Amino acid sequence: MADQEAEAQPAAVLVGKKPVMNYVIAVLTFFNQGINSVSVRARGSAISKAVDVVELLRRAFIKDLNVKNISINTETLEREGRKSNVSTIEIMLEKPKA
Amino acid sequence: MADQEAEAQPAAVLVGKKPVMNYVIAVLTFFNQGINSVSVRARGSAISKAVDVVELLRRAFIKDLNVKNISINTETLEREGRKSNVSTIEIMLEKPKA
Repeated sequence: MADQEAEAQPAAVLVGKKPVMNYVIAVLTFFNQGINSVSVRARGSAISKAVDVVELLRRAFIKDLNVKNISINTETLEREGRKSNVSTIEIMLEKPKA
Repeated sequence: MADQEAEAQPAAVLVGKKPVMNYVIAVLTFFNQGINSVSVRARGSAISKAVDVVELLRRAFIKDLNVKNISINTETLEREGRKSNVSTIEIMLEKPKA
């Protein structure tokens, strides 16, 4: 059971302030290591970039990339005693079966 | 058949440069008019705001809002003879059954 859970936990790429291509390469690296499920995540204004990462992957690198699921959520951050809400996105990718 | 198609076509809110709350109100207005499916769409950097709109709706207005589907895509724009690609998102919302 514990092993199954460990296997079900996919690799994650957290999209932030770096250029889109950096994250594209991070996903490709996971796929090339034989990891077939990669989750692309972002918060706040980086959400648009996470979508760019997936679309660039699909357009330029892996034509039949499988976008398995997209989910959105809210995280509550506490900074200097003030709570603020930030939107998040998680895009689950699967390497197509060669 | 034509009638069915017209009915299946949901109302759409295109998220752009206005404040998040404007789009939240647009969705709520559709729901209050008896339209049960609303699609929230955005392009490029407005994608993050589209997610904010849905999350604010869910957090503050309609707790059991049904996020039916989220899809991403690429649109090719041609401006001054140059082609450029822009990512898009479409978030399908359904009013919960009261």
